[in-house]
Amino acid sequence: MTILDKLRASLEEQGLKGFIHFQTNKAHENVTLRYLTGVQGLEDSGVIVPTDSEPVLIVKEFEESRARTFSTIKDVRGCTTIPLSAAAKQLGQVIDEKNLRGKKLGVDQSELTLEVYEQLQKLGVELVPFGEKIASMRITKLPEEIANIRRAAELASMAIERIGTLLNDGLTEAELAAEATFTMEKHGGAKAFVSVQYAQNASVPHHSPDSTRIQGSGLLVVDLGARVAGYNSDITRTFVVGSPPQEHLSYIKAVRESVSHAVERVRPGVNVEEVARAARSVLSKWGLPQPAHRIGHGLGLSVHEKPVVEEGFNHTLDVGTVFTIEPGVYVPNVTGCRIEVDALVTHDGAELIDRLPF
Amino acid sequence: MTILDKLRASLEEQGLKGFIHFQTNKAHENVTLRYLTGVQGLEDSGVIVPTDSEPVLIVKEFEESRARTFSTIKDVRGCTTIPLSAAAKQLGQVIDEKNLRGKKLGVDQSELTLEVYEQLQKLGVELVPFGEKIASMRITKLPEEIANIRRAAELASMAIERIGTLLNDGLTEAELAAEATFTMEKHGGAKAFVSVQYAQNASVPHHSPDSTRIQGSGLLVVDLGARVAGYNSDITRTFVVGSPPQEHLSYIKAVRESVSHAVERVRPGVNVEEVARAARSVLSKWGLPQPAHRIGHGLGLSVHEKPVVEEGFNHTLDVGTVFTIEPGVYVPNVTGCRIEVDALVTHDGAELIDRLPF
Repeated sequence: MTILDKLRASLEEQGLKGFIHFQTNKAHENVTLRYLTGVQGLEDSGVIVPTDSEPVLIVKEFEESRARTFSTIKDVRGCTTIPLSAAAKQLGQVIDEKNLRGKKLGVDQSELTLEVYEQLQKLGVELVPFGEKIASMRITKLPEEIANIRRAAELASMAIERIGTLLNDGLTEAELAAEATFTMEKHGGAKAFVSVQYAQNASVPHHSPDSTRIQGSGLLVVDLGARVAGYNSDITRTFVVGSPPQEHLSYIKAVRESVSHAVERVRPGVNVEEVARAARSVLSKWGLPQPAHRIGHGLGLSVHEKPVVEEGFNHTLDVGTVFTIEPGVYVPNVTGCRIEVDALVTHDGAELIDRLPF
Repeated sequence: MTILDKLRASLEEQGLKGFIHFQTNKAHENVTLRYLTGVQGLEDSGVIVPTDSEPVLIVKEFEESRARTFSTIKDVRGCTTIPLSAAAKQLGQVIDEKNLRGKKLGVDQSELTLEVYEQLQKLGVELVPFGEKIASMRITKLPEEIANIRRAAELASMAIERIGTLLNDGLTEAELAAEATFTMEKHGGAKAFVSVQYAQNASVPHHSPDSTRIQGSGLLVVDLGARVAGYNSDITRTFVVGSPPQEHLSYIKAVRESVSHAVERVRPGVNVEEVARAARSVLSKWGLPQPAHRIGHGLGLSVHEKPVVEEGFNHTLDVGTVFTIEPGVYVPNVTGCRIEVDALVTHDGAELIDRLPF
């Protein structure tokens, strides 16, 4: 079973004859092309996957050899793709060659830009929104996808451990963030993102690491992810610096218990709502405020992908799904605490692939 | 003169009553929202800029305080933007409030996804492609934009200098790349990208830093960029390791001369084609193959933006435009050499803002 097999099965289920995609140079967070081809960072490149013949990948001429090396698609064709209309013409030739004219082809409406859509509309095929199916396909990972996320989680754990050794060095948030990135990169990964938030900064969502120095007493929240072959990890740990008030330490205990309680719920057949409820119930028991953010999210080629792990988002867990569990406590302008683990659904429960104590 | 002033002037010129945009969570390389609001990394956020009343920025509730801090738009509204249709409803309320119903509003078709477009179509306004105008607006930078690129170029130069001190340490490409990122991040910047290519790897476009060790003799091509407040630098230098063949050294001399010759052409009123021709003419004079890539590109919120600096792409330079000049020589499977400078068009010529010898 390959990703292309999964795609074809899903296309046929929807009565579609293929899938067509084209990505311009806004490549970083557009991952559908990476998902379907195995090649990262392609710009101005397109793919056509017919249900009943071989797929074709069209890339810029100078990317042809790299694409051949990494692609799961054997038929790689180089073309000059400036302007966009020239690329569309090439896609049109493949449509003729594969007898797809007049047929229904799926498109990913969540990534396809309006300018590309307008070009594809001229190709004489019927374009059918298929982005939600792709997002759903991505929820359950194949073994090679899990291997990449596992390595990414290992690198993220190493970065967290590195920060743990630097807590008393009087560094700034930005300096600690740089150390975390360096740890991930020197071991062969890329940084997906690094967030370092000390004391009251930990209460502000999406605070960027700044010149705040790690000194005195407070909680230090480190949320980071590595990227391996395009696949991400995303973990958070809260460190204690100096001697913060007992109350702050109690937040950590509560959040720890919240994570454990949620993790215990994980197994195939369980709804993500139940996992989220379990996490929140512990915070309530401790009389703490609920986080405004969701309890967790799927993890893969995107740092945030399906499923949303929250009440109101109905999804039944399956073996091979990787998702985060990340309850937190935030006291505005005072402090914050969050723990986030990466859970892989196994036959009888959850494996925490970051393997880092919390 | 602010970016919003420039936008309004351009909208009025096109007979449009405003601009509307909404960005989902594919945020990294979608920069229109950053450009118009000053806020980086917004997800599921939208903006409406009427030509004759105050603009409105709609962000997720938990991003409201951060958006207020950084945004050039004063009217920031928090909203729950899951699902997308809820966000569209909020945009619809602003459209009513600003009397824009039935009016023509510009959209950026190069960033707008199909799923967002379909929601905007329901809002009772006429959507007009305006992305090319935004891209053109971005060519000439305001002083605060230049300040950010300048700082980004300074950080990139520091990273190149750092690599220069490590050439004899027997490190791998990936380790050198990690050192470069670390240098940029610990001085407060972010990595835009880092490419390190040694010996024959330098002949492969888009080669990723790997475990190739810098030892023996060869040319080492380092192409990297830093990001400051969303603005990028992009510079390349070629180092000599050990004692490569004289022929390889002659490539560096030729490329150096090619850059200088092109830089001398730069001044307001000159066409980019002339700059590209100047760079290529030197390579021809030396009897060397022409690079398959373009000679240069605009630099700003995107690493590659308008203008394309190449023959066939008509664009007259103006004071305040920042662009790269990056000729190279590539001998497949043998070696490669490239030098890339970041040029700012001044009243009487070009200022090379990376300030690093080449």
